[in-house]
Amino acid sequence: MNNIQFADRICAAIKQKKSHAVVGLDPVITRIPTIILDEAEEKYGKNENGAAFALLEFNKLIIDAISEDVAIVKPQLAYYEEYGAPGIEAFWRTVEYSQQKGLIVIADAKRGDIDTTATAYATSFFGNLKNEWKTPKKVDSLTINPYLGSDSLEPFVQQAIEKHTGLFILVKTSNPSSGELQELLTENGTIAENVATLVQKYGQRDIGTYGYSSVGAVVGATYPEAQAIYRKKMPQSLFLVPGYGTQGGNGKDITNAFNADGFGALISASRSIIFAYEKANAQSKQAIQETTRIAIQEMNMDINTALKNVGKLNW
Amino acid sequence: MNNIQFADRICAAIKQKKSHAVVGLDPVITRIPTIILDEAEEKYGKNENGAAFALLEFNKLIIDAISEDVAIVKPQLAYYEEYGAPGIEAFWRTVEYSQQKGLIVIADAKRGDIDTTATAYATSFFGNLKNEWKTPKKVDSLTINPYLGSDSLEPFVQQAIEKHTGLFILVKTSNPSSGELQELLTENGTIAENVATLVQKYGQRDIGTYGYSSVGAVVGATYPEAQAIYRKKMPQSLFLVPGYGTQGGNGKDITNAFNADGFGALISASRSIIFAYEKANAQSKQAIQETTRIAIQEMNMDINTALKNVGKLNW
Repeated sequence: MNNIQFADRICAAIKQKKSHAVVGLDPVITRIPTIILDEAEEKYGKNENGAAFALLEFNKLIIDAISEDVAIVKPQLAYYEEYGAPGIEAFWRTVEYSQQKGLIVIADAKRGDIDTTATAYATSFFGNLKNEWKTPKKVDSLTINPYLGSDSLEPFVQQAIEKHTGLFILVKTSNPSSGELQELLTENGTIAENVATLVQKYGQRDIGTYGYSSVGAVVGATYPEAQAIYRKKMPQSLFLVPGYGTQGGNGKDITNAFNADGFGALISASRSIIFAYEKANAQSKQAIQETTRIAIQEMNMDINTALKNVGKLNW
Repeated sequence: MNNIQFADRICAAIKQKKSHAVVGLDPVITRIPTIILDEAEEKYGKNENGAAFALLEFNKLIIDAISEDVAIVKPQLAYYEEYGAPGIEAFWRTVEYSQQKGLIVIADAKRGDIDTTATAYATSFFGNLKNEWKTPKKVDSLTINPYLGSDSLEPFVQQAIEKHTGLFILVKTSNPSSGELQELLTENGTIAENVATLVQKYGQRDIGTYGYSSVGAVVGATYPEAQAIYRKKMPQSLFLVPGYGTQGGNGKDITNAFNADGFGALISASRSIIFAYEKANAQSKQAIQETTRIAIQEMNMDINTALKNVGKLNW
């Protein structure tokens, strides 16, 4: 699996699961089911080790519930960093568990720094076989921030190509004030469009058999018109599209992010899936998993129906 | 100490130590002295625990060598994340050791994300007394990335003010391609100048008795002319100035980053200080500390002389 180009792995997995969804594994301790928190407190006490246990157990519960209906998960580093070293251990064990279940893992870390530091971040997430002090574990893909420019992106791109992993460079994010900098107008279009040009350039260095690059872009779902513009500017990039569900987007809003071949967009939802059990007031692990499974199946159906309606469903 | 406004703490510490320097604690395993690596391998083996031990021991050696001559240290998260959970533990123990030695700690993490995630990152670094699952440890300050706009910065600013910690928002970085996005021209000046306007706005919410805000800016030392422009745009912000030493800047290049009162800039150097022992070919711990101490004293003298020459030395 690890010698296949990243975008090829993504496209094949999407087709197999008939799902364009990405589930964000963003556990918040106050929203983790009581049944898991009680177990964590009993085993470790109310401390970072207990919290880390709860994060991992909750993730496993969710992963088991969704792994047949989804191809990709996206743990957000902030929710693990919050609990120090035990939290980071929970992150890596979540990655490992997801990969064992056949899922592709995007680490949502939005890292970005100057040359040598960017290299250190890249090896943090993509492993380094030449460093005997380091465990060779790796995620399948990483989100990165472009504010520092090309020489900060280059180490990530090099390592992604070399290690058959993928990148999603922030182009247009889904938050309300994302336009504040990203949509400032320059002589070559907006800042986000300038970043899109960079993504497109880097993307050419690693195109797979499905026609997609290992260098993708984050393009928020809350701006459907913008999706069409970015789709044209980066025809061979996979888009990681946040903002579906809780952030206000839905299936109709994201069809522009897809190419005519029915590929090209990974639609991410977090809270609307992993905390779906709250609305259903599910208490037992089985009931929690059942409501989670229904939530992801509904999301798949919403997206696939929307794609079918615009003639972009390819199965 | 923790109830004093961040910029006041910084200015008082700088005056006490007669040093405007910040030492970047960016340990790279291949450049850590053999004497420490051997000890690490003997105790833990060549693995992440061994690496984490080496990072921490090296940092302690450096901290002990510099703590009388410097007020501020800046560990860069990438070099700790690289070694997983043990690496993060080494980061937090470095923070703790630095604070015990009376040093102010800037975590160079360049985090940035949407609202709820930004809140999680802010509590990762600034602690959260209301969360019983979390250790209340915190750094004194954090670097953050502005690409996502105001609503991604707001949670950091709120928590910084509430917890008497500080922020350094990336405005203009020191790497060669930093201008690629940061200097694109909009109708209100460059992107970096737009960010400077944001920093200035946020800064007004928390000005200390020295006249400086807890919301500072990263402004690279490789652009002395730019320093003068940014100094005018953000008169009350502390500047974290990377790029001194290894990255090519020197004392003369950074005087524009200071105000007439002799405050306002924190000059950061990492490799030129912590790896100074390599050039001297120092082998013993004592010899390594001696070369490190000479390196930081020379840096202090270089900066202070440059400030004196332009009439900005205030002691």
